[in-house]
Amino acid sequence: MSTIRYETFPAERLKSFVQAVFEQQGFSAEHAQTCADVLVSADARGIDSHGVARLSGYVRLIEKGRINPKPSMQFSQKRKAVAQLNADGAIGLVSAPLAMQRAIDITHDLGSGWCGIHHSNHFGIAGYHALMAVQHDFIGMAMTNASPLVTPARGKERMLGTNPIAVAIPAGEEDPFVLDMATSAAANGKLEIAQRQGKSIPKGWVMNADGTSSKDPLALKEGGVLLGLGSDADHAYHKGYGLGAWVDIFSGVLNGASFGPWAPPFVAFLDPVENQPGKGLGHFVGCWDPAAFRDIDEFKSSMDTWIRRFRSSSPIDPHRPVLVPGDPERYLEQERELTGIPIVEPVVNDLEKLGDKLGIAL
Amino acid sequence: MSTIRYETFPAERLKSFVQAVFEQQGFSAEHAQTCADVLVSADARGIDSHGVARLSGYVRLIEKGRINPKPSMQFSQKRKAVAQLNADGAIGLVSAPLAMQRAIDITHDLGSGWCGIHHSNHFGIAGYHALMAVQHDFIGMAMTNASPLVTPARGKERMLGTNPIAVAIPAGEEDPFVLDMATSAAANGKLEIAQRQGKSIPKGWVMNADGTSSKDPLALKEGGVLLGLGSDADHAYHKGYGLGAWVDIFSGVLNGASFGPWAPPFVAFLDPVENQPGKGLGHFVGCWDPAAFRDIDEFKSSMDTWIRRFRSSSPIDPHRPVLVPGDPERYLEQERELTGIPIVEPVVNDLEKLGDKLGIAL
Repeated sequence: MSTIRYETFPAERLKSFVQAVFEQQGFSAEHAQTCADVLVSADARGIDSHGVARLSGYVRLIEKGRINPKPSMQFSQKRKAVAQLNADGAIGLVSAPLAMQRAIDITHDLGSGWCGIHHSNHFGIAGYHALMAVQHDFIGMAMTNASPLVTPARGKERMLGTNPIAVAIPAGEEDPFVLDMATSAAANGKLEIAQRQGKSIPKGWVMNADGTSSKDPLALKEGGVLLGLGSDADHAYHKGYGLGAWVDIFSGVLNGASFGPWAPPFVAFLDPVENQPGKGLGHFVGCWDPAAFRDIDEFKSSMDTWIRRFRSSSPIDPHRPVLVPGDPERYLEQERELTGIPIVEPVVNDLEKLGDKLGIAL
Repeated sequence: MSTIRYETFPAERLKSFVQAVFEQQGFSAEHAQTCADVLVSADARGIDSHGVARLSGYVRLIEKGRINPKPSMQFSQKRKAVAQLNADGAIGLVSAPLAMQRAIDITHDLGSGWCGIHHSNHFGIAGYHALMAVQHDFIGMAMTNASPLVTPARGKERMLGTNPIAVAIPAGEEDPFVLDMATSAAANGKLEIAQRQGKSIPKGWVMNADGTSSKDPLALKEGGVLLGLGSDADHAYHKGYGLGAWVDIFSGVLNGASFGPWAPPFVAFLDPVENQPGKGLGHFVGCWDPAAFRDIDEFKSSMDTWIRRFRSSSPIDPHRPVLVPGDPERYLEQERELTGIPIVEPVVNDLEKLGDKLGIAL
């Protein structure tokens, strides 16, 4: 087993670097700042696979012309509660917050509002966009489709992305409830961690290309597939498949974006397949105003009751209490605000190389 | 292993019986008919645990005064896109379709519409309510909380119901996509089947009350807990927990219904705990109009492409092709329309006993 080395950075230093890189790539200062905020927020919350580790990949996609640094994003709105954003090839880090802001505006007006997005790209952590709603005391929801890596139940073909769903719900004195989950059994990032550590992975995360089970973290890179949440027929992997499929349809099919096995790959060295059934990646965001359902103070007080009751429910191991969705990320965020954000050495090297190339100091 | 015996009934005969029972209990003819339609639709679709097997349990709850046969259900609407239904102790089989109809009406107007429900009871299969939207070319969503049987991740306490989520999406020439899933690894009904067959169950469905793993289908009856989708820490059971929690909050907390460990039990021999944090069970239903997002014909044609591509994706076993969510239930429904609905002997006996008591012939 090899030792993992980290270097620790204050969040602001990472943000400045990310912002400078995006500006250098032709992004407006405002767009670059949003990108920096979304990306470093992922690192701060411990979702390292969706943070600055992605930056050089984004730059390669910009260089290949697959991410448009100067998009002319256009809203259309056919019905009062629903808008649609043509992201014009923007990065999702920018298009998703813009769309969520529109959904928030509609929700102020009607009590619930929605925005679909097409012709977009990777949008970072779904939870960031859902949490925007919480600042308005709204419930936020965000989902996106993604490059195909996950097989349907019974299948052995890459048909779905890890297609996350996020739902963020405000509370009163307690912090918000934040569900932010990939619909696969394990995210790609967990495979990479096992790979770096030279460890095998649990059965039920990946299959080889021939449909046989594997505990090798390299199985995916060698043409295998990720498994949906549930992992096998005995543990209801048709449900993980169903959730991933739902996200794909809402993100892709509903908005006229690409979908399923055709969804554009995140990596620049793979070209999207020809004859796309839609434009780019799609996202789906929206909100509900709890005050439209019941008195907002009563709602918040009930949320506090819910959160406290669940945190105090009986644990198997008294040293590992029951958590509320959002707690693990929040605890890390609080810790990293004080101590800085640890970045693994290969990512630090990657960022330094990128900085050298672009003339930007990390 | 014991042999399971079935008796087969035409759907119409079961419906007539169910309707007569509810009418005898004081339901209006219209409500009794809706109940019969929802219940027998579950049996027809193979979700036998949510069909006529529930009937005598409902009658016991009516007799105990926990289901109101003559509810005075009242809508309130504070915002244009969101309504709220006080079900006045109605059975959910009746309140949920009423609420979904209101959500459909709002969606005709705005492109998306929602209705929360409180002071309700068991609502049958979530998919029935979601599918109502599809008749209007809308996407339907339905969820409900339920009696606590499922533990949070890391816990060993009954804190959540099997809290289902249903999403039904119309297609063009193809049949609709219908996701209808409990957020637990296995539904109670599967434990009952194993119990009748004298079989052990897979690891990951239940735990004993002390938090140890069990393969005994009786473990739940003996004070154990069901596990959330994902089953264990290595297979992301925090996601199943997160989904179940989301449903509980949307159904209960958001609507002022009861929630979490306080949710009223389905069985009449257990009384609800005192000091309820809300009224009865809660449900959450709503719709989106795909035509608000893009041209409806293009949407439907893309759905057909999606469905056909997934059905033809590469299976592990060529004799077990990849399915689309909703296929298994639809295949059973088509078969049972021709051959009738098989009801297991203990349920037939239970229905006959109920019929004898009430003077209604099965």
